[in-house]
Order: sequence, then structure tokens, then C-alpha cells
Amino acid sequence: MNIQETLKNSFQIWNKLNENEKSELISASKVINFKKNEMLQSRDASCLGLIILKKGIIRAYLASDAGKEITLYKLLENDICLFSAGCIMKDINFDINLICEEDVELILIPTEKYNQILEKSTVISNYASDILSSRFSDTIWILEQFVFHSLDKRVANYLIEHIDDDNNLRITHEKIANELGSAREVISRMLKYFENESLIKLERNNIKVINLKKLNKVAES
Amino acid sequence: MNIQETLKNSFQIWNKLNENEKSELISASKVINFKKNEMLQSRDASCLGLIILKKGIIRAYLASDAGKEITLYKLLENDICLFSAGCIMKDINFDINLICEEDVELILIPTEKYNQILEKSTVISNYASDILSSRFSDTIWILEQFVFHSLDKRVANYLIEHIDDDNNLRITHEKIANELGSAREVISRMLKYFENESLIKLERNNIKVINLKKLNKVAES
Repeated sequence: MNIQETLKNSFQIWNKLNENEKSELISASKVINFKKNEMLQSRDASCLGLIILKKGIIRAYLASDAGKEITLYKLLENDICLFSAGCIMKDINFDINLICEEDVELILIPTEKYNQILEKSTVISNYASDILSSRFSDTIWILEQFVFHSLDKRVANYLIEHIDDDNNLRITHEKIANELGSAREVISRMLKYFENESLIKLERNNIKVINLKKLNKVAES
Repeated sequence: MNIQETLKNSFQIWNKLNENEKSELISASKVINFKKNEMLQSRDASCLGLIILKKGIIRAYLASDAGKEITLYKLLENDICLFSAGCIMKDINFDINLICEEDVELILIPTEKYNQILEKSTVISNYASDILSSRFSDTIWILEQFVFHSLDKRVANYLIEHIDDDNNLRITHEKIANELGSAREVISRMLKYFENESLIKLERNNIKVINLKKLNKVAES
């Protein structure tokens, strides 16, 4: 794997970095592999550092003591994870779990080195803020949907009521939005969320429920 | 009002700034006053800039179309608000409402100037990240309590069941925590949240319910 190539693809601000910043990032990078279902980070784990995903999928989620989970987002190829360096972030006092949903190859910039780089580079520091605010935005969205609209329940109920015997539903997101008094973008995002949770599979003009039991749980929650 | 004094009190990293950074912040600062119940920012408002609170209280909250609200946090004296400069943050696509709960005197660093400062100063940029991660942490806490534990409902029910005829309850937070199978810190934080929402008032060894109607709504929600 070419580390520089991956960093360049992941850091959208790569071309704004000077040669010194680039070479510091490159020399701090280590390649690590994880197996499917391995936890990168959980409550008791230490603070790895900045992670850049080269291959595979990592799911970031909150878990309650009772075993309930909320997926915050998924990291795909070239995505950067800040929370694996959460220990250097101020006042972060929650635990985000990171689990590999497939075999994962990643670049790790260990916490201490990442911190040193942050203290010297405005471009990287501002870029980290951008990523953080984007994740914040995703989290606010989840909060609004769950607390205000119970939209997760309403969409789940809608799907359960309308699927055929093979668990398929041929419908546009627009149509669901109209029937639930919501907007297409909002419904599409919730369906994408369900897909991330492996409840459904989004196909062309079709929604396939692949875990009806879990979808029922959402509907009743 | 001495602007420099306020900036020094608000920016915990003030002493790490060089003279140039300090004078840029000072010269960019404008003093503005708002009346109680004025909205600093709502869905349709423009993007003011970085706000430093000199006097008063600002409440930051999410609002649903149906009129429900979730308070995210309150800004007190010397607190810094980033979301009033949300338009320069990447991928922030939610609307945080900011309302003055008292007459407010604040320092505003307009968006454009703030952005210019961010692009030059690593210390300020990293400090902004720290504030952001702290707000993120508060938001995750709210998400966890509401979605996982329904702790808001459980504490509300507990209070309603146990108050005397004058709406007082003499009890330690520890005791409530034990009875609800939670931790003292968690209960204290939820009670503080209720106080912020003007549902209760926390007094020495006493909890006073000041808006029973609204507390009932929380209990039943």
C-alpha cells in the first residue's frame, strides 16, 4: 500500500499542506490490519490515534449498559476517524465504540504524533475541526429524528405494513415521504440509516427488508 | 466594558497567544447588546460570527416544526459560542436556535474576521476544536439519556411521585440515583438539565419543582 497516496485521497486539504507537513504525516503513519468483527475501540480500550481507513468498513456506535446501540456513522474507504484520538480532545467524556464490519486495513497516526502535528499546522487543525463539525451534524440529525419525530419508528412501521410476502416494497422515497408528511431527503437518509443497521437493503426502485425481527423492534421501541 | 479583559477571561488559551493574535482578536471585536427573549439566531437568521458572552444567559436549543424543543446547553458569562459562526463550519446542516434568557451583553467577532484569524492561528484553531468537542460531548450525553435510558422521564416521574404539597423534595441526588439504579453524577446532571429547562430549582438539600405542568409533560412524553 502506498501511504502517501492514501493520505492524499483522505485529506481533502492535502494540496494546501506544505512539504514539511506532508512528510510529517507520512512518517508518522503506520499501517495496521484488523479482522472483521474486531473492536478497534471500546470503553476499556486505550486511545489509538487518528485513523484513516484504507479498506473495509468501520461502524461507530454508542452502546448502553442494557445492550441497546445507536449507530452514529460508518467509516468507508478514505474516511478519517477522530474519535480514535478522543483522549486528546477536550471534555470528550463519552465512549464511542468502533467495530470492523469487514476486514480492515488502516493507517494509524499515533495520538502523540497527531497531537504534535495539530499544534504546528493550522491547515490540519482546521481540517480536524471540519471533520468534527460534520460528525456533530450527523449526531444532531440522529438526535432530532429520534427525539422529535420518532421518525425511525414511523418509517419502520410503514415498511412493515407495506412489504409483500417476500419482504419487498416497490416504492419511491418520495411516496413514503408524502405519506408520512416528511421530506424525501429525510426519508432517504433514514432508509440509508436502516441499511447501515442491516435492517433493509436499498435496491433500484425496491426496498428489501432483510431483518424483519430487528425492524419490528425499532417499530415497537 | 474592557474588551481585552473579557477576551482574556473567555479564551483559556489567551496566554498562549502571541501579541499579534491578541491584537487581531481585540480589533475584530464588537460589543453588542440584546434584550431578554431576543433571538440571536434562528433558522432564518444570518451567520453572526463568534460570540463571547459578557453578561446574561443564552440558551442554545433545537426546535421541531411541531414546537418541541431540546436544550443543548446554556451559555453563561465568559462562554464562547461557535454555532453563531456555523456557516463557516463544514457540513453543519442543522439549525441551532440561540435565545437570550436575560438581557445580554456580548462580544462579537464577525464571521469573516473570525475565519481569517482561524486560518492563521493554530492555537485559536485548536481551541475552537476543543470547544466544539466539548459541545459535541454534551450533545452525545443528551442523545444517550433520551434514547437509551429515557432517564428524563424516569427522573421526572420520580420527582412528581415524591414531592410534598409545596412541590418540595428533600433528598440527596445519591438517593435518587440509588432508587433509579443510576449514578449520582448522572442524576445530578439530569437535575441540572431540568433546572436549565426551568422545571425545577436546585436548593441546598432540596429540589423545588417550579413548573409541574411541564414536568408532567416530560414524565408522559
